[in-house]
Amino acid sequence: MTSSLRDALQFPESQRALLEPHLPPKNLNPRSSLPFVTLTFATSLDSQIALAPGVQTALSGPESKAMTHYLRSRHDAILIGVNTAIVDNPSLNCRLDGVGGYGGEGLKGQPRPIVVDPYARWNLEDGNCKVLKLAAEGKGKAPFIITTEKARPILEARIKALEDLGGKFIFANSVELVHGRRTISWSSIFEQLKKEGLMSVMVEGGAGVINPILSDARAHEWVSSVIVTIAPTWLGEGGVTVMPEKKISSQTFAPIPAARLKDVRWIPLGEDVVLCGRLKDDGNYGRGLERLLGKE
Amino acid sequence: MTSSLRDALQFPESQRALLEPHLPPKNLNPRSSLPFVTLTFATSLDSQIALAPGVQTALSGPESKAMTHYLRSRHDAILIGVNTAIVDNPSLNCRLDGVGGYGGEGLKGQPRPIVVDPYARWNLEDGNCKVLKLAAEGKGKAPFIITTEKARPILEARIKALEDLGGKFIFANSVELVHGRRTISWSSIFEQLKKEGLMSVMVEGGAGVINPILSDARAHEWVSSVIVTIAPTWLGEGGVTVMPEKKISSQTFAPIPAARLKDVRWIPLGEDVVLCGRLKDDGNYGRGLERLLGKE
Repeated sequence: MTSSLRDALQFPESQRALLEPHLPPKNLNPRSSLPFVTLTFATSLDSQIALAPGVQTALSGPESKAMTHYLRSRHDAILIGVNTAIVDNPSLNCRLDGVGGYGGEGLKGQPRPIVVDPYARWNLEDGNCKVLKLAAEGKGKAPFIITTEKARPILEARIKALEDLGGKFIFANSVELVHGRRTISWSSIFEQLKKEGLMSVMVEGGAGVINPILSDARAHEWVSSVIVTIAPTWLGEGGVTVMPEKKISSQTFAPIPAARLKDVRWIPLGEDVVLCGRLKDDGNYGRGLERLLGKE
Repeated sequence: MTSSLRDALQFPESQRALLEPHLPPKNLNPRSSLPFVTLTFATSLDSQIALAPGVQTALSGPESKAMTHYLRSRHDAILIGVNTAIVDNPSLNCRLDGVGGYGGEGLKGQPRPIVVDPYARWNLEDGNCKVLKLAAEGKGKAPFIITTEKARPILEARIKALEDLGGKFIFANSVELVHGRRTISWSSIFEQLKKEGLMSVMVEGGAGVINPILSDARAHEWVSSVIVTIAPTWLGEGGVTVMPEKKISSQTFAPIPAARLKDVRWIPLGEDVVLCGRLKDDGNYGRGLERLLGKE
């Protein structure tokens, strides 16, 4: 048995069936302007994803970990923010049994890692980058890094190195300054990823990505599915929290809930629970999916 | 059909059976010094119990509400902090079908409301107190109010009025100043309640009660059961959060999880999920219950 197979994770058919209504369907419309977007992350009971900024925190159990890799196998790409890339140095590949590099052929079932990095802060050259190592070993795809034209001058050496592995830099075409920082419009990111042929994108975090999406009603339009894993633990004050901005009623000026999931399903999984739902409330999967399926 | 019966809530047998391992058993030892203590509350996904301080927030669905009343019927007493009493003006009775005042005889199945009020801030005389109204109508028991000897001089009129309804003030015998505020030791509160014949106490909140209990490893010793309801909504920043204090490892000085539940069971209930577990990890229900059952 090879080392790859020993590492490979199993995720049972019965659990796959429960998740199926919340995953990208097979008949996505290739002409839709946006991919199917799944927002997914794991929190503690006190809605934290880490014990402190920069501290990688093991929250969920082995069953939930296997589920994450199954979800990765069902998406064309997985997307994270640059802070997570730097702090966690994540593998961002799929270690599910039968996927390319883990018993399967080539890179079959491996998602494309996407890192959103407007200032090109992710240091790929230090030799420790797990994503690049796995790509070199044939156990994962090389990343697409979304950045801005202003970063191009500092990228020359990296562009070639990344392309040699099969990855690339994507220069965002919709950049604005928000509070003085370069920010790329989310819908433009997803449009550009769709043009790259990526039909489905799993957004994995961290808080710097999740909180703005949960806070923005426009973002709710293009999130097709939300899958949250909750572990039965309280991390305590001082951690990294998933909490959207306060929302105020335009009629009463009183606070109202920032976001609520519809078509909810709770799936106990080991010691954890998996919550599946949608942010939009207009149709079977919302207008988003109707559009993705080419029905409008 | 009387108005009481129209208000009465139903909670199905199948759900009761799932909760049973997490509820006070029938054979509690009357000679144990402490009651069976259940900690229970409802939060949003971002671990909040209210949209803002002082704002009563409907979080959980009708099924979870019926469960709360079933839980109340299974405990001799329900305990809240004075802030919750003042802000929410809660009913603190049990409106489950078949309980006294709701189809049942007398006050059968009605829990004793307990309010922890060291400074005697709860204003019972303003005529709006729901707990007193329900007691006067025979739909709930009059409260026991836990306070301190220093508050006695301002209580004279209230003591008589409360006793006429069947309630009383309990003067705590273990009071200490914490950060300059009168604080009653939790274990002494529960010992005094046990001496009043209350074999089981359900602690319902609010954050001012829950957070200190979750933060204190000594408190974990006498919490027999934890039941948390989570609603699939994010309230957003600025609310009242359940989050224990940061815990630091005495070996590494790094942050570690503040609390974790054991013997976990997740029960989907309508749109919500109910999480049952224990804080202590030493035996079937922990030493706490062994002691309660008189087995040590």
